[in-house]
Amino acid sequence: MNSEIFLDNSSTTKPYDEVIDLMGYISKEVYGNPSSLHRKGIEAEREVKKSRQIISDSLRVNLNEIYFTSGGTESNNLAIMGYLYGNQRKGKHIITTSVEHPSVMEVYEYLKSTGYTVDYLNVDSNGMVNLDELKSKITNETALISIILVNNEVGAIQPINEIIKIKDSINKNTVIHVDAVQAFGKIDIFPKSAGIDMMSMSSHKIHGPKGVGALYVNKSIKLNSMILGGGQESLLRSGTENVPGICGFGKAAEITFSKLKENYKLVEALKNTLVKELNNNIEDYRIISPDESIPYILNIAFGGIKSEVLLHHLEEKNIYISTGSACSSRKKIHSRVLKAMGIPPKYIDGAIRISFSSYNTEEQIITTVNSLKEILPRIRKTSAQRSCK
Amino acid sequence: MNSEIFLDNSSTTKPYDEVIDLMGYISKEVYGNPSSLHRKGIEAEREVKKSRQIISDSLRVNLNEIYFTSGGTESNNLAIMGYLYGNQRKGKHIITTSVEHPSVMEVYEYLKSTGYTVDYLNVDSNGMVNLDELKSKITNETALISIILVNNEVGAIQPINEIIKIKDSINKNTVIHVDAVQAFGKIDIFPKSAGIDMMSMSSHKIHGPKGVGALYVNKSIKLNSMILGGGQESLLRSGTENVPGICGFGKAAEITFSKLKENYKLVEALKNTLVKELNNNIEDYRIISPDESIPYILNIAFGGIKSEVLLHHLEEKNIYISTGSACSSRKKIHSRVLKAMGIPPKYIDGAIRISFSSYNTEEQIITTVNSLKEILPRIRKTSAQRSCK
Repeated sequence: MNSEIFLDNSSTTKPYDEVIDLMGYISKEVYGNPSSLHRKGIEAEREVKKSRQIISDSLRVNLNEIYFTSGGTESNNLAIMGYLYGNQRKGKHIITTSVEHPSVMEVYEYLKSTGYTVDYLNVDSNGMVNLDELKSKITNETALISIILVNNEVGAIQPINEIIKIKDSINKNTVIHVDAVQAFGKIDIFPKSAGIDMMSMSSHKIHGPKGVGALYVNKSIKLNSMILGGGQESLLRSGTENVPGICGFGKAAEITFSKLKENYKLVEALKNTLVKELNNNIEDYRIISPDESIPYILNIAFGGIKSEVLLHHLEEKNIYISTGSACSSRKKIHSRVLKAMGIPPKYIDGAIRISFSSYNTEEQIITTVNSLKEILPRIRKTSAQRSCK
Repeated sequence: MNSEIFLDNSSTTKPYDEVIDLMGYISKEVYGNPSSLHRKGIEAEREVKKSRQIISDSLRVNLNEIYFTSGGTESNNLAIMGYLYGNQRKGKHIITTSVEHPSVMEVYEYLKSTGYTVDYLNVDSNGMVNLDELKSKITNETALISIILVNNEVGAIQPINEIIKIKDSINKNTVIHVDAVQAFGKIDIFPKSAGIDMMSMSSHKIHGPKGVGALYVNKSIKLNSMILGGGQESLLRSGTENVPGICGFGKAAEITFSKLKENYKLVEALKNTLVKELNNNIEDYRIISPDESIPYILNIAFGGIKSEVLLHHLEEKNIYISTGSACSSRKKIHSRVLKAMGIPPKYIDGAIRISFSSYNTEEQIITTVNSLKEILPRIRKTSAQRSCK
């Protein structure tokens, strides 16, 4: 069996060794509660501030515009619910896309039950929103637009600058929230100069620890809290700070941002190798990800298979990918995103998501394609495939 | 200077080495996302289940009655808001005590603004609720009673069995939530046999990592989610599971519960030594914690000083305590709890909280009292003391 080939980096990433080491050190030595008045508290608070500084510097925003949360999901929830509940007079209309992450979609579903109207922008076959449709939807009542910057299933990058330009031309009071969980640390984003009002980030997508995320909130914006108590995070997010987690996140961001361009090039080369090798070796497949998508994600659909079956055959070879396709994660339903993109039924069941990190190598890509070359004809022959309901 | 003497264990605790080691191992080797269909996901899910098993076993409840959260604050919020929003027809009246943690108090403040009526039970000079008052407050409209089992400032243990008996005799439909953050791992609590419906716990109070907590919810109870998204934690709490944090919490619980009685005796001896040494060496002080309180917490008030000044003098000697008294943590307001207990003004400004763990030693207690003996006369002479507003 190969040594481990982890090509599911949009699900989660392996933490950097430096992150693990720092978290161990902080847990052992800087274990105070940042709310404590004594030195053990002050030291812990200082370490939290260091991480906040790293992240705010990397986004070119102010230190006090970064709030730590328990992860990307909480950040998305807090941005949307915190803004709408804290600004109830700004309107009851919200706009999003049909290809958001569940941590946005489910919030919108809930808000619909409490009197909000939600418009979901369609996407084309490249996964891109239609700017004319956006233009036609914004009204004086539009409080919030929430956009996933890099789609987690196919990697499509939404034209955020154009979206903001259109928004500003129609309703300057509409606030923009960007779910940047799959974009942060991969492409340059400077929310302040871009006109993004709130932006969600997650640590474990950039080789940081799980259980930590952040939300950028422009200082002009007032949010309601979701989690109430001791008033940590400048009163926005109560609960004893996850000091080692926050420090791990800071370290991961420091490393990631210091190599952002280098990593991008590396991953782009890996993706190009994969595309070339597929072309040379594999029959009946289709690349779902648009050409202009982020190179970190490649969604590929193979005809005549169920993606979950392929996933398990690859797993036997110590190769890890995601379906994120026919069966969206553990839920046995067809991917909303792929349906929205109009992928034909023949392919939608056989789509897999390969997502890269800087830990991957050219050799791993070759091994993966060789494995596909061996597995695909076998499973295409087998009729007894597990089916998705 | 002494080596570090950490007597602020009710604020937070130093993680066990085994916890830090396990978290490092999990971060490095079991870094999958539990939602992933492949082996890396399954392995991560299995580790989460192990921790859930340890915690449910320690409470003698079912595996699926334990939900992981980002900490005690989120657990308290989720229990109260999740229950009330999920059971809106059960009544708009709630009861709590006047000595709850902010993560309960602030939720109740918010709920008052949305149409709920809240009764706050008074406490006597021992910090104990008045059971007759409780009896007089429960009505057919009482949806929820929330009680802090061990008070975080003075250590008073509320008579939870009597409270539940009274509740059941008047309104069997009223649900009981217990904030057990300062009790979990220190005294035996078996929520199911006790008739507790929901119970909050925190990892970093038992030498586990920060950023993790749990909520016990009896399987007959339905809660609304607070954080929405991918449907993790049996749909109750979305967001990628903090796998290393959860594993660290499980390991901390395993160690703590294996030594619960032993630790209790050790800490009781430390507290008794402290009380004896104070009696032999220190003038003009008063023990605020009731005799029957948990030995892990001793609140002591010294006449003629400001506790914050004493805290900083002790810190110079590498001894860490909490004010949790005149100035409640960073907030310069008098402690609600001490006021509710009727502590005279002469002492309320000079109260400190000493909170023990099994890492403390008899020698540390002697050193601390010797330091107090040296510091107190000095600061009592000094008139230029920082004052609390």
